[in-house]
Amino acid sequence: MEDTVAQGAPVELLRTALPDGVVVTDPAVVEGYRHDWSRLPDAGWPVAVVRAESAAHVQTAVRWAAEHRVPVTVRGAGTSLAGGATAVDGCLLLSTERMTAIEIDPVDRTAVVGPGALNAAVKDAAAAHGLWYPPDPGSFRISSIGGNVATNAGGICCVKYGVTTDYVQGIDVVLADGRLITLGGRTVKDVAGLPLLKLFVGSEGTLGVITRVVLRLVPQPHPAGTLVAYFDTPRDAARAVVAMGSRVRPSMLELMDSASINAVEDLRAMGLDRDAGALLVGQSDAPGGARAGELAVMTECCEAAGATTVFATDDPVEGDLFLEARRAVGPAIEVRGAALHEDICVPVHQLPTAMARIEEIAATFQVEIPVFAHAGDGNLHPVIVHRPGDEEGRARALQAFDAVLQVALECGGTITGEHGVGRTKRAALLDQLDADVMDVGRRVRSALDPLGILNPGVLW
Amino acid sequence: MEDTVAQGAPVELLRTALPDGVVVTDPAVVEGYRHDWSRLPDAGWPVAVVRAESAAHVQTAVRWAAEHRVPVTVRGAGTSLAGGATAVDGCLLLSTERMTAIEIDPVDRTAVVGPGALNAAVKDAAAAHGLWYPPDPGSFRISSIGGNVATNAGGICCVKYGVTTDYVQGIDVVLADGRLITLGGRTVKDVAGLPLLKLFVGSEGTLGVITRVVLRLVPQPHPAGTLVAYFDTPRDAARAVVAMGSRVRPSMLELMDSASINAVEDLRAMGLDRDAGALLVGQSDAPGGARAGELAVMTECCEAAGATTVFATDDPVEGDLFLEARRAVGPAIEVRGAALHEDICVPVHQLPTAMARIEEIAATFQVEIPVFAHAGDGNLHPVIVHRPGDEEGRARALQAFDAVLQVALECGGTITGEHGVGRTKRAALLDQLDADVMDVGRRVRSALDPLGILNPGVLW
Repeated sequence: MEDTVAQGAPVELLRTALPDGVVVTDPAVVEGYRHDWSRLPDAGWPVAVVRAESAAHVQTAVRWAAEHRVPVTVRGAGTSLAGGATAVDGCLLLSTERMTAIEIDPVDRTAVVGPGALNAAVKDAAAAHGLWYPPDPGSFRISSIGGNVATNAGGICCVKYGVTTDYVQGIDVVLADGRLITLGGRTVKDVAGLPLLKLFVGSEGTLGVITRVVLRLVPQPHPAGTLVAYFDTPRDAARAVVAMGSRVRPSMLELMDSASINAVEDLRAMGLDRDAGALLVGQSDAPGGARAGELAVMTECCEAAGATTVFATDDPVEGDLFLEARRAVGPAIEVRGAALHEDICVPVHQLPTAMARIEEIAATFQVEIPVFAHAGDGNLHPVIVHRPGDEEGRARALQAFDAVLQVALECGGTITGEHGVGRTKRAALLDQLDADVMDVGRRVRSALDPLGILNPGVLW
Repeated sequence: MEDTVAQGAPVELLRTALPDGVVVTDPAVVEGYRHDWSRLPDAGWPVAVVRAESAAHVQTAVRWAAEHRVPVTVRGAGTSLAGGATAVDGCLLLSTERMTAIEIDPVDRTAVVGPGALNAAVKDAAAAHGLWYPPDPGSFRISSIGGNVATNAGGICCVKYGVTTDYVQGIDVVLADGRLITLGGRTVKDVAGLPLLKLFVGSEGTLGVITRVVLRLVPQPHPAGTLVAYFDTPRDAARAVVAMGSRVRPSMLELMDSASINAVEDLRAMGLDRDAGALLVGQSDAPGGARAGELAVMTECCEAAGATTVFATDDPVEGDLFLEARRAVGPAIEVRGAALHEDICVPVHQLPTAMARIEEIAATFQVEIPVFAHAGDGNLHPVIVHRPGDEEGRARALQAFDAVLQVALECGGTITGEHGVGRTKRAALLDQLDADVMDVGRRVRSALDPLGILNPGVLW
């Protein structure tokens, strides 16, 4: 979409149309907005950054961009692992980070939230009213609701509580021509007209810029009990996962492979078993005595699948330790080098096959690929680690990255379960979706953004 | 869209392209396909009915319709209460009733289902593997999965378990030009590309014809305990509903007003209190001892809201009796005369206001309007009863129908929570959605069906 980049976009016109401080062109500041967490080496330079404080600012910015054919890269907190918020050259970088309002309605059980509000802040605000916003991507402490909605973010709780789209009751969104529309709103159920609300959740900023979100809240969950099980192989762990799925509804069911376990131990000794082939950490938040019952079923499934050690605890402090070990995998891998984050999702019964294939790929391309997974959903996060600055190593890592995406497809799965396509999986999207589906997607995108100014380079 | 109706559509061409018995033009048979449950007096005459047995038949039929500019009315089991499957003059009536295959995968916990399979048949097939398909519209024994998906049907369990879209993992759909595409599939999570799957669920047959559905299944729920509470006024009952919502997650929370209670008793004496202003029937399916705990909280909320009688039971037989009373409301109202079915949804705190306004409307237009509600979701089903054949009475009923839709909007709600817009709420849709939202909807619909042949007259 480079042809849409205006040479010499009249930034001064935009600056005068918005309050002081909203439009930024200082290169030192702009530099901080070029990259997201995918740290793509080919991130471009924006002509300006707009730090919108209101939907009206977003409208002004998008109208200016449409008039002058300037591509718009939309950014929440910039935590995309798929390049979804990476700047393209000559773009207007539109940040919603300052739109952080959160308003809880305890009677209708909703949170009305600015797109820049952090997921964790919404959780905290809801908790103050005894309510809960379930979606919990790994980044929940640092990622924004706007980004969560734009990517239909998942997380650890999905196995029981679903993904972001299940909690979005309404949005305000600025269209590619600057019009502001409201979709959905205050009711739990609403089927009036085409399901446009759902079309925007997960559209990765390609159809509009979200300026307000109405989130559905639920009562706080009951305290969780935790199960920890070691296995000789990921295959055994996966069998336990499949067996549990038709008998209980764990509130969490996470898997770490041997490389992940060792990465965590390398970072900080937590007493994990370095010799295990896989570690399964599950939780049940069933109320009262039923929790012990669910943990007993989960234990039984692990033992039947050949677990070498199984341990269940009702002590929340002890349980949190294992949850922390799981949450430490990301940081533990980050310190080992540059990382390419995968997010494939396969039918649950294909978990062992996918993990075996990933091991082969690691060997073939001589790269390290620790894998952790939201196992209950078949959602795997292989992370391909390479040495920063080693160009040959990066080339091998990129080949391994592509090979893992193909594994997802061979297993009847998807190249992305919750991170989005962004920029890093564009090519593979064409392998997953056939030409007719791509055609439908292109028709919809063109119908809403005929100039192609919104997030060019994202999705396709 | 009358201008798309072809005069003298070459039905013989279609007949020769499909196996014997698939294309029907016998008026006595066609007559049975003109109406759905809304029984609209202006139902048209199809030029032919296609009883498709496969996706290939659907493709052939749609290609023929596109070539000859024949409008297509799509029909599952014909149980729409909104005129969504009512024939238009000169249409091809495309029925999926014969596509009833059901295949359960107990490992991945999915049901792969033909659009003509009945909801109840899917539930039964899942139950044979210890699994559960939760969505339960009032019509679940007689409505098809295709129709459920096309309308994003709700039901009684939504308050805890969500609506149809939450359980649709994948669909096959024939587009307006006859191409067959697959969206989603075997994985629980999938964010690759635009969320087109979600766009089709609830699109009321205007974007394509669904030929296969992959449904997500969950473990069977625990047995439910039942709470029954009588109140002097719907307002008191609504206060109890609001109070429960932030403390427990009932698996059912249904409300009947005085007129509904009496309609049921008129049909069949069940011992309901005819003098009560409202009856609340709730259930908890929390496991083990937690069920009693939830019922205790629900009881407490009812008593605090001024319930005159509260009664909780763990006996499933006794509980089922009250559930049957609730399910009898529909039939009980049907026998009182012709019925216009409403399906408004309001923010939960607006329940009492909406019910008071509906009482006023009944008085103003001198019509009977029993109301029953999925109270936990704020989803009300006022039913406007009038005497068949009484034209003046029908006119008043239609005025009352429109007035009730306006109440939904005044309360910040929606004209339809789960039935769809169909033909009966087209005019009111323009009151709910502003011009820019309608414009987005029209762009999307035109992008996918440029000839406007799919379900003309439905939605807009």
